[in-house]
Amino acid sequence: MSQTVRIALDAMGGDHGPAVVVAGADLALVRCPDSQFLFFGHTDQVAPLLAKHPKLQAVSKLIHADIAVRMEDKPSQALRSGRRRSSMWLAIDAVKKKEADTVVSAGNTGALMAMSKFELKMLSGIERPAIAALWPTLRGESIVLDLGASIGADAEHLVDLAVMGAATARILLGHKRPTVGLLNIGVEEVKGLEEVREAGRMLRERQMPDLDYVGFVEGDDIGSGKVDVVVTEGFVGNIALKTAEGTARQIREHLRTAMQSSLASRIGYLLARSGFAKLRDKLDPRRSNGGVLLGLNGIVIKSHGGTDAEGFAAAIEVGYEVVRNDLLAKITAALERGVAGEPRRALIGATS
Amino acid sequence: MSQTVRIALDAMGGDHGPAVVVAGADLALVRCPDSQFLFFGHTDQVAPLLAKHPKLQAVSKLIHADIAVRMEDKPSQALRSGRRRSSMWLAIDAVKKKEADTVVSAGNTGALMAMSKFELKMLSGIERPAIAALWPTLRGESIVLDLGASIGADAEHLVDLAVMGAATARILLGHKRPTVGLLNIGVEEVKGLEEVREAGRMLRERQMPDLDYVGFVEGDDIGSGKVDVVVTEGFVGNIALKTAEGTARQIREHLRTAMQSSLASRIGYLLARSGFAKLRDKLDPRRSNGGVLLGLNGIVIKSHGGTDAEGFAAAIEVGYEVVRNDLLAKITAALERGVAGEPRRALIGATS
Repeated sequence: MSQTVRIALDAMGGDHGPAVVVAGADLALVRCPDSQFLFFGHTDQVAPLLAKHPKLQAVSKLIHADIAVRMEDKPSQALRSGRRRSSMWLAIDAVKKKEADTVVSAGNTGALMAMSKFELKMLSGIERPAIAALWPTLRGESIVLDLGASIGADAEHLVDLAVMGAATARILLGHKRPTVGLLNIGVEEVKGLEEVREAGRMLRERQMPDLDYVGFVEGDDIGSGKVDVVVTEGFVGNIALKTAEGTARQIREHLRTAMQSSLASRIGYLLARSGFAKLRDKLDPRRSNGGVLLGLNGIVIKSHGGTDAEGFAAAIEVGYEVVRNDLLAKITAALERGVAGEPRRALIGATS
Repeated sequence: MSQTVRIALDAMGGDHGPAVVVAGADLALVRCPDSQFLFFGHTDQVAPLLAKHPKLQAVSKLIHADIAVRMEDKPSQALRSGRRRSSMWLAIDAVKKKEADTVVSAGNTGALMAMSKFELKMLSGIERPAIAALWPTLRGESIVLDLGASIGADAEHLVDLAVMGAATARILLGHKRPTVGLLNIGVEEVKGLEEVREAGRMLRERQMPDLDYVGFVEGDDIGSGKVDVVVTEGFVGNIALKTAEGTARQIREHLRTAMQSSLASRIGYLLARSGFAKLRDKLDPRRSNGGVLLGLNGIVIKSHGGTDAEGFAAAIEVGYEVVRNDLLAKITAALERGVAGEPRRALIGATS
């Protein structure tokens, strides 16, 4: 890593394309002044926007890309048509070539995962990528993973997720030895999900120095912030995330209707508007934008496709933080470390 | 079924025991006057409470039970110590003996499932029970199942869940041909969860007269009320339910803090209190209390353990409604019907 953090941006990604990406980078630069940006996108569209932000332009380079991966493209389709030519591919390629320290894209998630896996390859011993993101809780924020990168996970993969999630939490949450919980359901003696129990046994036995495994957690423990890191496989993680988003949207809608239901409520709403602003701020999905793709040989950040400049800036800042704090090296070291210095591969042999 | 609906109550179940069960039955009787109640519990505790509600007492019978299954008992433990003697067992047994049309318990979920399965047995062709419950949405209410009775489901079981969930929705939501969605994640071409896709194919091909299969839904579609019935296996369903509950609790807490954050907010809150009352009503978990255990040869209703009399009454009313509308016969008929009159077993042979 150079002294500045070099950030590759897929300027064509997301529902709003270059407008949000450029404006987001401009916001991020204020908070992370030692950044440099590589914009990958169509020059005709990106250059005029960059020209409006001279400070940003001064630390940026624009590289032309003919093709933009579409949000509706299937990953295989994106790989076929966008390889070596799309803004997404070229941005990822910059990380591979060590011209950038991280890449941020608000584009098609499936395509971003497929291209990242293809170009950057997986870390040794990790077979499939995971997405980790900040989840706002009553106590602050937690890291939840996998939010939908891979379906299904055996015990060993769940342990790897715990290790990678804890490394991310150390950086993004600043906890020295983050608490980790495995997502499970509370019904006793129900058959199945042997892999979650096995992962629990392994985490307990290995007594890792970098994480504090506290046991199983349930769905309602995520929002309460019971642990710093919640570990689950991607199908369940994605359903949990979307269900929480849907519930928040539903309550906002009920609240809006309720506050318009009478004159007194409308006046009350106006009087309490500073309170409502605080609530909105707590629930602002832009604050927790920016999922880290883990398990890859490189740092890839996925922004929500529909976010605005403020949200995209948050995703850039996640990338900045994990690069600044050397997430990749920390993950690699933690995965290698295993228990009490034993190499990890030997351990797998011993437990399987 | 007799002309009245005969409801067996596990009077000792739940965090608050007989006090809530008796008071809940008293409330339910007002709304379902053609009910009769069989209370199973310790006479010393239940009789004095019943004596305070003469109208309820007039339509009730109290049967003594020595033992109460504890909330922390494991199912196997409950089966060992509570068989033939506990209030829960005897209440279920009343359904088996056709002395009651349904049983309602706020007790230990695992024990209730184990005892119900043991005593009532499964419906022909169904191997494992499911829990279905009302889920408040922006459009009203949906039925979601399985909320945690069984972990894992093959395609055939998911189709059975769709059929049973639709039959429940017809009764509790009053829709003639309920829309049904299979819970899935949106990432295209991700490997795994072949069973969900296969179930989708089967539901589409079979063109069932009693349900309108609309395809996959995602986590945020549950709260928006996109479909009347959301089908998923029990692990995912339980995580989704608990995550939604946790998110709602989290937002309520943020809202409470926000409304106390300044004098203006506090005054605004007071002025808008009718609006907040409406919101509370919308989010009131008691309104959707009462999970139906499906797949059993009998109607068993699970109430939340921590609910109050109003919530327990809602669970009783769910039991009343499904009995009154003959859920069990409708499920059996729908499962038998299959496609265009072909017997179901032949179909299974044809698709597997």
